[in-house]
Parts: sequence; C-alpha cells; structure tokens
Amino acid sequence: MSSNAPRLKVAAENLPVENGKRPIRPVRVGNVEFGGNRPILIAGPCAVESREQTLEIAKHVRDAGGDMLRGGAFKPRTSPYSFQGLGERGLEILAEAREVTGLPVVTEVMDPRLVDLVGQYADMLQIGSRNMHNYPILIEAGKSGKPVLLKRGWSATLQEWLYAAEYVALQGNLDIVMCERGIRTFSRGEYNRNTIDLNVVPALRAQTFLPIIVDPSHATGDDELVPPIAKAALAVGADGLIIEVLDHHIDRARVKCDGAQSIRPPALEEIVREARWIETRRSETPASS
Amino acid sequence: MSSNAPRLKVAAENLPVENGKRPIRPVRVGNVEFGGNRPILIAGPCAVESREQTLEIAKHVRDAGGDMLRGGAFKPRTSPYSFQGLGERGLEILAEAREVTGLPVVTEVMDPRLVDLVGQYADMLQIGSRNMHNYPILIEAGKSGKPVLLKRGWSATLQEWLYAAEYVALQGNLDIVMCERGIRTFSRGEYNRNTIDLNVVPALRAQTFLPIIVDPSHATGDDELVPPIAKAALAVGADGLIIEVLDHHIDRARVKCDGAQSIRPPALEEIVREARWIETRRSETPASS
Amino acid sequence: MSSNAPRLKVAAENLPVENGKRPIRPVRVGNVEFGGNRPILIAGPCAVESREQTLEIAKHVRDAGGDMLRGGAFKPRTSPYSFQGLGERGLEILAEAREVTGLPVVTEVMDPRLVDLVGQYADMLQIGSRNMHNYPILIEAGKSGKPVLLKRGWSATLQEWLYAAEYVALQGNLDIVMCERGIRTFSRGEYNRNTIDLNVVPALRAQTFLPIIVDPSHATGDDELVPPIAKAALAVGADGLIIEVLDHHIDRARVKCDGAQSIRPPALEEIVREARWIETRRSETPASS
Amino acid sequence: MSSNAPRLKVAAENLPVENGKRPIRPVRVGNVEFGGNRPILIAGPCAVESREQTLEIAKHVRDAGGDMLRGGAFKPRTSPYSFQGLGERGLEILAEAREVTGLPVVTEVMDPRLVDLVGQYADMLQIGSRNMHNYPILIEAGKSGKPVLLKRGWSATLQEWLYAAEYVALQGNLDIVMCERGIRTFSRGEYNRNTIDLNVVPALRAQTFLPIIVDPSHATGDDELVPPIAKAALAVGADGLIIEVLDHHIDRARVKCDGAQSIRPPALEEIVREARWIETRRSETPASS
Repeated sequence: MSSNAPRLKVAAENLPVENGKRPIRPVRVGNVEFGGNRPILIAGPCAVESREQTLEIAKHVRDAGGDMLRGGAFKPRTSPYSFQGLGERGLEILAEAREVTGLPVVTEVMDPRLVDLVGQYADMLQIGSRNMHNYPILIEAGKSGKPVLLKRGWSATLQEWLYAAEYVALQGNLDIVMCERGIRTFSRGEYNRNTIDLNVVPALRAQTFLPIIVDPSHATGDDELVPPIAKAALAVGADGLIIEVLDHHIDRARVKCDGAQSIRPPALEEIVREARWIETRRSETPASS
Repeated sequence: MSSNAPRLKVAAENLPVENGKRPIRPVRVGNVEFGGNRPILIAGPCAVESREQTLEIAKHVRDAGGDMLRGGAFKPRTSPYSFQGLGERGLEILAEAREVTGLPVVTEVMDPRLVDLVGQYADMLQIGSRNMHNYPILIEAGKSGKPVLLKRGWSATLQEWLYAAEYVALQGNLDIVMCERGIRTFSRGEYNRNTIDLNVVPALRAQTFLPIIVDPSHATGDDELVPPIAKAALAVGADGLIIEVLDHHIDRARVKCDGAQSIRPPALEEIVREARWIETRRSETPASS
Repeated sequence: MSSNAPRLKVAAENLPVENGKRPIRPVRVGNVEFGGNRPILIAGPCAVESREQTLEIAKHVRDAGGDMLRGGAFKPRTSPYSFQGLGERGLEILAEAREVTGLPVVTEVMDPRLVDLVGQYADMLQIGSRNMHNYPILIEAGKSGKPVLLKRGWSATLQEWLYAAEYVALQGNLDIVMCERGIRTFSRGEYNRNTIDLNVVPALRAQTFLPIIVDPSHATGDDELVPPIAKAALAVGADGLIIEVLDHHIDRARVKCDGAQSIRPPALEEIVREARWIETRRSETPASS
Repeated sequence: MSSNAPRLKVAAENLPVENGKRPIRPVRVGNVEFGGNRPILIAGPCAVESREQTLEIAKHVRDAGGDMLRGGAFKPRTSPYSFQGLGERGLEILAEAREVTGLPVVTEVMDPRLVDLVGQYADMLQIGSRNMHNYPILIEAGKSGKPVLLKRGWSATLQEWLYAAEYVALQGNLDIVMCERGIRTFSRGEYNRNTIDLNVVPALRAQTFLPIIVDPSHATGDDELVPPIAKAALAVGADGLIIEVLDHHIDRARVKCDGAQSIRPPALEEIVREARWIETRRSETPASS
C-alpha cells in the first residue's frame, strides 16, 4: 500500500497483536473456523455433475477427514460450448450433500443477480478468479452477509486483491477468506496450468488479518503436483486448502470439468494427514510468523 | 483453436475471401463503419467528470477529425475509494455530447443489470478488460442487439478472447469489434503500465472476420508513448483506435482517472492525420494482409 | 533510472538536442549508417549452413535492397543436439558473401575467447539475447572497438539493457546499436514465440542516444507475422530491422534453424519498399518522435 | 520433452526405480551428499567482501548446523558500477573459511576462461541464473569434472533448463545439482523480486535423477519471506537450500550486495531445525513423492 492510500478495513493494523500471536481475525462457516491452528480442508468435485457423483465424493471427503465441501453449480467456462453447470438443481444437490455429510458447503456465484439464490443454499459464497475484478458481484456478496471465499485473479497484484476484499468489507462484511490459486506466467502449458505463488501468502499475511487459503488444484493443473504443493502451502502458513477430488472409479477423461487436476481419495487422505500434523505442531509451538 | 473445437460463429472461414480482400465483416455504429479502409478513431475522456469537461473534449474530438466519442459513466475502479463515475447522469451528458457533435458514443457497461439502461443512451456497448471473462454480461450484451466493443482481458489468451466473442455471437449478435489494450508482463511499472501486444492483431485477423482496433492509452499508460504506438497499430493493420484525451488547460494530476496516459488535442490531431494517410494508402493498394 | 544512479555514458542527456531533432548518435558500419533518416535493413539466413545457401540468400538480400547481411556461424542453441553452426568456416563464407554483394556483415559472438576471431571477419559483432547479461563478453566486445549489435534479453528490463550497453561503453566503445527482439510472456506458444515490445522503442529513445532496431523474426516466430510487425516497428520509429530470410526453393521444415519464422524474398522486398517510403517521409518532415 | 527429443543423459528413465524409492542419483561434494534423506543447507554471504566478514559468517553457518558455505568472489552485476567481487583474493578467503570451518565451498564462475582458476579453490562450481544459457561456460564446467550447481534462468522453461544440464552432462560430468531460484513475473517489484516456482520441483523430479535445491533468497528478495519459503521448499521435496546470510551487527543497507534479502543467524537456525525435522521424517517414512 502506498503511504497515502486510504486506511483499509481489511488491513492488519486494525487488529492488536496479542502475545506475539499473528493477528488473524477468524472466519466461521457453520462449525468450521478459518484462521485458527487447524488448517481447513475444503474438497469436492470441480462441478456438480449429478446427485450420485456429488454424494459419493462428499462422503469420501467426510471419511477422509475434510472440513467442508466444494462443488460448482454455476460454472464460469472459457468456452460457451463447455458444460455450464446444473444451476439451481446443482444447489439442491449440494444442500443434500451437506445434510448427508454434515459438511458446510461453498459454491461459486458469478452473477450479481444470483447472489440471493446461491446464498439460500450455500454456507459460503465463492468469488472466482475471473470475477475478482467484478465489482458489482463483490458489493452484492458484501451485502449478503454470507462468508466470502475471494480467489485471487490470475494476474492480480496483491494490492488489487486487497482492494477487491475492501469492496466486500465496505458493505460491513469482514467474513472474507482470501484464496491464492496460481498466477499466469510464461511457464503456462509446459508443466503446469498456472504458477503457484507462495510468496504472496506471507506477503499478504503482513498486510491483512484475513485468513488465507491455497488452491493447489488450479495452481498446478496436474493431479501429480497437487499433494506436494498442498504440503508446501501448509508449510508456508496457509490457513487451509481447497482441492478438487475425483471418485475412484471415474475415468479422468470423462469428467466434465478439470479432470486432469482432480485427485483421488487416497491422495486427499495423505493431505489431510499432513494438515493434522501441521495442526498439532502449530498448537504446540508459540506462533511466530 | 484445437482441431476438435466447435466451429465458432466468429471464425474467419465462415466468410468467403473475395478478390484477395481480407474477409472482414464490417460493423456499423450510426454512420461509422469499422472494418473498411478508413481506420475509425474513437476518442474522449477516461471518465465523464462533468458536463463542461465532456462537451469541451467532445468538440475537440470532432474538430480534430475523430469519428466517435468515448467516456465512462460507470467506471470499474481497482480501489473502492476511487471515483466510480457519475452513473446515469454521465449517460445523459454523453447523449448531449452526441447531439452537439454528431459523434456516436461508446461507453462501458459493467453490470448485467444495467445493460438495458446503458443501451438506451449509448450507440455501442464497451465490455472492459476486467469483464472479458464476465459471461453474464457478455450474454446480456449479445441479447441487447447493440454493437459491442470487446476489450481483451489483460492476461487473456487469443483463444479465451475469441470464446468471449462467441458468448456474444451465440445470442445472435455478430456486431462485435475486438480491442487489444495491452497485456500484463514483467515490464509493468518500469516504462509502461502494460505491454502493447501487436502480434495479436494479425494473429487474430487470421482467425476471425471481426474488426480489430487498438487502445494505445491503456496499452502504454504514458501519454508520450501514445502517438508512436497509435502509428504502429495503424501500420500493423488495425481497423481503428480508441484514445483517452485531456483538455488543454486541465492539470494532468487533477483528472480523476488516467491522467498520465491521456493526450492533449494536438497529439490527437497528429494521430488523425496519420490515420487519414493510412486510409488513402489502403484505398489505393489492393489489400493483402 | 533511479535518481541516484551514476550518470550513464549511453544516456541521452549527454547529447545536445539540435533544431528539435532527436539526439541520436549515428553508428557507422562500412558505408551503412544507423540512426539517420534511412531505416537500415539487415537480412540473411538464421545460420550459415553452406556456401551455396549463404551466397544465394545474400544476393537476394542485395537485390531486394537490403543494407547489411546477417548469418550465424557460432549458434547458441537451447539443445546441445541442435546444429551448432559451422564455426570459423562459417565466418569465411560470410566474408565471401560480403565480397560478392558488397554488404557489410553482422554475426554473433557467444564466447569471450572468440571475440578476436569473429572480429577479424565481421563488420559488426552481435551479442545475442541469451548473452545480454554475459558481462565478460560485453567487456571484450567493448575492447574490440568493433560496432556492437546488442540484443535485449528476452526478460530484461529497460534498465538492465541500458546497463549492458554501459558495460560496452565503459571500454570506450559507443558504437552500439540496441535491438528489441521480443519478450517472454504468458502468450508464448499460442500464436507467437515471443511478444514484440514496441513500447520499449520510444521509452528507450527517451533514455539514450543509441540507435534502436527491431527483430521481427524472433519477436514473432511466425513468417506470416513478420511483415506487419516490420511495418509497425518502422512506424514506431525504429532505426532499422534485422530479419531472417529463406530461399525460394528451400523447404521450410528442412532448414537447420528458425525455419518457421524466416520469410521468402518477396516478403523482404515488400518490407524494403515500406522502409524506403518511411525514409522519404522522415526526410520531408521535421523530425519529432 | 517432445517425443522425438533425443534421449537425455540427465533423464530419469536411465535410473532404475528401487523399492518405490524415487530415483535420485546422489551428488557428493566433500563429505556432503545431495539427494539423500538429509536436506543440504548451503549458506553464506552474497559476496565475499572481506576476510573478517566472510570468516565470521562462515562460523555462524557452521554453528547453526549448515552443511556448506556459499559466497561470491566473481559477481555478475547488472550495473558495471556495482561491486564486482574481490576476484582471486575472494577465492583465497573462501578457501581459508573452508579450512577454519570444515565446510565445503560453492562459488560462482561467470567466465569460461576462469573455470580452471575457480576450480582450484572451490569444491563446487555455481552457474548463475544469468549464465544458464551460456553454453561455453556449461561446457567448461562439464570438462572440469567438478560438481556443478546449475541455477535456473529466471525466465527459462523446464526444457531449456534440462538442456543446459545436458550440455554439462555431455562432457561426462553428471555431478549436477539443479537450483530453482524464482522466475520473473508481473508481480516483480510489488512484494517480491521474483516468484518462487515450487511447481517446477516435482515437475523436474519426474524428468530427471539430478538432485534439486531451492534458493529462497533470490526467489523472494525479502528476508521476511525467506523462512516461510524455505519451509515450503523443504515440504515440497527439495534436496536442499541455498541461503544468503548477514552478520548480526551489520547494517543491512551497508552490505554491498543483496542486503534486503539476507537473513540473520537466528533465522538460519530456525530453518536448519526445520530441515533436521524433515530429515527425520524422510528417514522414517518409506519415500513416495
């Protein structure tokens, strides 16, 4: 922030440092709390494709020890010919999956006219990477009072990302979780879809009290890279992860969305174990950076 | 386009090549035609700040020989604390400026709920760089039947840009003008705000019949670079330019938006002279690339 | 340049502005002068592959109206399994081509131990993009007293590029021609190999009196894009071009280096006509930018 | 690697997978082994500035539990006016520091004519980021038979980096350690100097048996970011780290090189503790990714 920038509502200095603990303002979604010692694991399919697929994956997420469920009902797709999501039917399926598993649900909203509708079903509203600069939707999400998962635009600066959060916060809603999901660089398409930017996690931490999570699925675009990058994100200090999961018996090529970067349940279990270990370690040590 | 991509409505092969002329499907806005021999010059203030400022600049644009008027009534701003535009009052001022000068007006729409309103005043709807991936707004713009100026996202691939146009076209609206406005690269902030990507102009030309213009103001971010880049864009074959202009007597630092990259009327006149010369030359020579 | 940077030898302020003419210090190579009204056209094969190939292309360059001959004898190749050039035999062939055509020769040197050898044959030493940060070679090129063609590193800032020139200049050699050849961005591999950065031409012009040319072959990587980008480079104010050329009857796929981006003689002739027209226009008008 | 690329000497498939262990071919430097369970910590000053400074930091590195000593005697500097290193006197000081501490020494060589000289003092030759594409120096380093630390060019693709290693390997020298040190992206200069690319670590691991380490100092450019990124690099599976260190009582602003990104000894101790813990964990668990 330049020195003459207005004092942001989401800036760190508003919160007092206590006992050397880093000043994170926790965000609660149901019984889940972002910003405590426990890294929160959100997992689920890229898109809600059917009731069966979604319920099955939701149970895997619960059984693996995940904390929340993700899944797209309204999907922003580069091509108008790609699967666009099931819409409100997808929201109903997500609500049923929540009932079955007890896991709170986060799903994307991509139209300011649909914020109310999505908010009736979801526990947390996701603003996707393409919409980080979509100010009408940020304002509606702020007004909704629902917790917001704010993904970084794939070419957004840290300052632009903070200002996007400020649009939400100015509506009186500080329940914002920031999500790094990879940036677009020259290496796009060679061994990854995006470059995971872990530098931004401690850099953002120094600027705001908002919790920060990482999306290793979009940040790599390759299921083989997801587990090591998930571990790196936890080690760098992220407050959680959001991960795309694929069922055991589903052919990767037949999934309607992000098949190449979705992991199978055993890989999810491995990541959950790492997260639990990190939780123990964070609880034992007096927190520093 | 990968070979198994669906056949795009905006793809070049749908239009027959005649007499070696490149197959551009002209887009008309009032008496202005994009895609003919005449490069179209759109100019005006970044934002409509007041009636006086807008009318004065509009007359300069007309006197300099410009073809259309630009100006923002609804402004997408990175910071919620920046000037957000005059809203509908700004649209009224633009309509008055059109009446006074006879120049058609293009202005940005950034909310799908406002497409109808903006369409009542504007002759052409601008979809800004931040909203190239905003599919609800692309669809509403398509439905409106109004000509659309579709700016490239600052980190969008050519394919993503074409697909954005396809969202508009699928609503039955082919009156789309593509606008390159610079991409975000490592050189950001050193000597420019963005890197003008002129390679994309002939590359896009080979893929679609839509007219293509260039925005040298955002593509440089520096008024000293605007005239040479405007000339380069005309030389590379652009169908027009869109340029931000500042009045003679206004202090650059006091403008509410893009002061550093706006040019003064004499620089605009120099660019118009170049455009007219290019028009003569294109008319004389049998067109190739 | 930051304000407390040392005063560079290659900085613009060392040269007085006369009659509003931009302060370029011309660089002479034989009878060729970079930095006057005449844009200088350097053309030739990517690599010297054989005596026959080189002499034939050299004659085409001369017949088309080119000013200088290019061709690699020592080739920096990403893969050690690619053709590495003919070495000193390649230099002999270039010298013969100069004798036959009368065109001065520029060729790359990529090893500080070979600057003397290359300097015995070449009229101008090229420092390639990979070696812009290779300080020992910059220093040797400076000591050689030969004119130097200094390509920009594909991810170099303007400041880094100027400092590279300063390494040469500090040896007492100001006969440096700067060459923009495209930068590496996220668009790499989609419709181009690099992104041509034309913003840097006027930005660099404002900082130094050194002549600046553009390489549209490497800046695009596609022979279809070379002519429009060559025209854009001339329009933006470049002092010349360096272009890779392929003979009429040679199969593009069988060339040992850069086949996809080399143009045929008729395309070269079209570019030369444009350059001659620009020369006339520059001579008629009192120069500004 | 494209399918018709030649079979690289540094490719993974040459080494058999045993008991599910990942096929890393260890590289030994004195009593230090890269590629085993123990992450190797290389630390030291950016540049050798004086005998006192170097010996003092070297003792800190030893006392903190570091494995090797780094320090530049020949420094590649963007500006010719920056400190260029002490040259051979710097090598002598490094040799004395090795004698005092018992730590092997790695130092950069940036001129093919100096490979022999540097090799007489150093235990390992560093090829810096600027010289990854400097083929003469890669070939000389290969001929020297000394272990090589090959930094990735800041805009190099994975394939270009592998080919650079292949230049060394073709001389019969497979003792190469790869080092990721950050790439240049649009975020340069906002909160970091480079973007650490951790995706490349598992992606490279899948392609080669060479050990891979990470440089969190250059990959961030900010001493506050070094510890979290060091931990992330260890978590992602790196075989070691190379870190710039500054003495307790030295003013950061007065250091001749990289003052802003050098950490103090206590931060180094924290990183060593993390590395030792990772070592224990790797030893206990059957290795996977």
